[in-house]
Amino acid sequence: MTIKPLFDKVVLKAVETEETTQSGIVLPGTAKEKPQMAEVVAVGPGGVVDGKDVVMQVKEGQKVIYSKYAGNDVKLDDTEYVIIRQSDILAVVE
Amino acid sequence: MTIKPLFDKVVLKAVETEETTQSGIVLPGTAKEKPQMAEVVAVGPGGVVDGKDVVMQVKEGQKVIYSKYAGNDVKLDDTEYVIIRQSDILAVVE
Amino acid sequence: MTIKPLFDKVVLKAVETEETTQSGIVLPGTAKEKPQMAEVVAVGPGGVVDGKDVVMQVKEGQKVIYSKYAGNDVKLDDTEYVIIRQSDILAVVE
Amino acid sequence: MTIKPLFDKVVLKAVETEETTQSGIVLPGTAKEKPQMAEVVAVGPGGVVDGKDVVMQVKEGQKVIYSKYAGNDVKLDDTEYVIIRQSDILAVVE
Amino acid sequence: MTIKPLFDKVVLKAVETEETTQSGIVLPGTAKEKPQMAEVVAVGPGGVVDGKDVVMQVKEGQKVIYSKYAGNDVKLDDTEYVIIRQSDILAVVE
Amino acid sequence: MTIKPLFDKVVLKAVETEETTQSGIVLPGTAKEKPQMAEVVAVGPGGVVDGKDVVMQVKEGQKVIYSKYAGNDVKLDDTEYVIIRQSDILAVVE
Amino acid sequence: MTIKPLFDKVVLKAVETEETTQSGIVLPGTAKEKPQMAEVVAVGPGGVVDGKDVVMQVKEGQKVIYSKYAGNDVKLDDTEYVIIRQSDILAVVE
Repeated sequence: MTIKPLFDKVVLKAVETEETTQSGIVLPGTAKEKPQMAEVVAVGPGGVVDGKDVVMQVKEGQKVIYSKYAGNDVKLDDTEYVIIRQSDILAVVE
Repeated sequence: MTIKPLFDKVVLKAVETEETTQSGIVLPGTAKEKPQMAEVVAVGPGGVVDGKDVVMQVKEGQKVIYSKYAGNDVKLDDTEYVIIRQSDILAVVE
Repeated sequence: MTIKPLFDKVVLKAVETEETTQSGIVLPGTAKEKPQMAEVVAVGPGGVVDGKDVVMQVKEGQKVIYSKYAGNDVKLDDTEYVIIRQSDILAVVE
Repeated sequence: MTIKPLFDKVVLKAVETEETTQSGIVLPGTAKEKPQMAEVVAVGPGGVVDGKDVVMQVKEGQKVIYSKYAGNDVKLDDTEYVIIRQSDILAVVE
Repeated sequence: MTIKPLFDKVVLKAVETEETTQSGIVLPGTAKEKPQMAEVVAVGPGGVVDGKDVVMQVKEGQKVIYSKYAGNDVKLDDTEYVIIRQSDILAVVE
Repeated sequence: MTIKPLFDKVVLKAVETEETTQSGIVLPGTAKEKPQMAEVVAVGPGGVVDGKDVVMQVKEGQKVIYSKYAGNDVKLDDTEYVIIRQSDILAVVE
Repeated sequence: MTIKPLFDKVVLKAVETEETTQSGIVLPGTAKEKPQMAEVVAVGPGGVVDGKDVVMQVKEGQKVIYSKYAGNDVKLDDTEYVIIRQSDILAVVE
């Protein structure tokens, strides 16, 4: 199965390496958005979204930090994904 | 009876196969949007919605993942449907 | 008495047939919008609403499914009506 | 004293006839907007309101159904009025 | 001291005459905006406010009814004022 | 240290004179915005803010009344400041 | 690892010097945005963000005061960062 995101949606797969665990993400408060690192696995076509033209900036294979609060968790073929709007991606990590 | 969605609305029918149950959707939190897989059964005409031009991207028969939180459940002739705005559809699954 | 809706408002009258009761509407949660089937009894003129041009798509006599949460219940001459914006009508049922 | 509404405001006076009481307004829930019938006693000039051009559609003497939730109750010279934006008037009753 | 309101702000001084007390304002609910009568003591210059051109309609000395909920109470030289946006003024009373 | 506000931000320093205390600010309710008098100590450059052109109207040294609810308290070199958007300044006091 | 912020995002690193502690930030209330001083470590490219053109005003190495409430905390290689929209930066401190 393949997930093809629509519009400005991006499909992410959590990066679960030991390194991530050690130097990973700090979640100091509970009422706050939980940013996370993940790998981009699919990118929507962009185009006109809610009346505004969106150009996709991220690419498959990039590691990104995102605001998890806004994403949707999906499990498909035993793999967990997050589908998120590109505008909820905060940064690319290289 | 036939449901003809207006504007940018899409009518979905839940995909309830065993495969879906096994490799299905993870709903880790309760206060969070619950994404789900469903089949598109009818697509609205699109056009100007809330002052913005909307082109319909999904088609009948496609399987999609959507953010259930925003949809409306309807039961008609003993079949359950979800009517949802296209912008609440996250991805097409192939 | 006659109700003449303004702007993009539509006046609906609940369809309360037995068939509707049997294969009626599923309301699984309480915190969620309750969609319902109803018959259109009057349609506003449309035009510029909140700065946007609205063309009315529904017609008197059509059966529609709507998101009841957004409507206003009115009782006039012992008949109950719902007055709703056209954009809160989800689909036409034929 | 005379109330001259500004912008897109409309001054309403409750219609409290027996007929209204008998075939009056149904208020099934408490958390919901309470629509009511009232008579238009004064209409603002319209014009540009919040950057959008508003043309007044209602006239003095008309009976209207409105969404009371959005209005402001005012008592002046022992008469109770409701001042409401025209867009919160749902329909004219004739 | 003189208060010179900025933008679309208007400075009001409560009208506390006996007449006002007798035929005054009804505040039926507590969770609702409390409209009040007051005298205009200063009017801002208007102009572009939040990207929209605002023309001031009220004048010093006019008595107005306003939605108190949106205003700010200020006490200066032992006099209490309310500073409010013009759009929160509902009507002029003559 | 010098605070240079960005965009439409203004830096204020509370006016804490005896006069202010005596004829000071009334804060009748707790759930309401608390307006306060303060002196302007720095003014941002204005320009395009959130897609709208903002011209700065206030100047250093002016005393202003502002809606404290929207501001941010900052302590720098033992002096307390409030950083606020110009649109949250209600009036200039002379 | 390097964080490359997208769009109008800015990466900040908390300034934790003794001076900061002594003449640091006042957080008088708990329900209020907590402004903080931090150093800019990376600046996004700006461009069209949510349909509006954003020009980046801050630079690497500047100390800024920001409204922490809107930011996202991230820990990467044992260093804590805050990723924030430029519009949530209140002022530059020199």
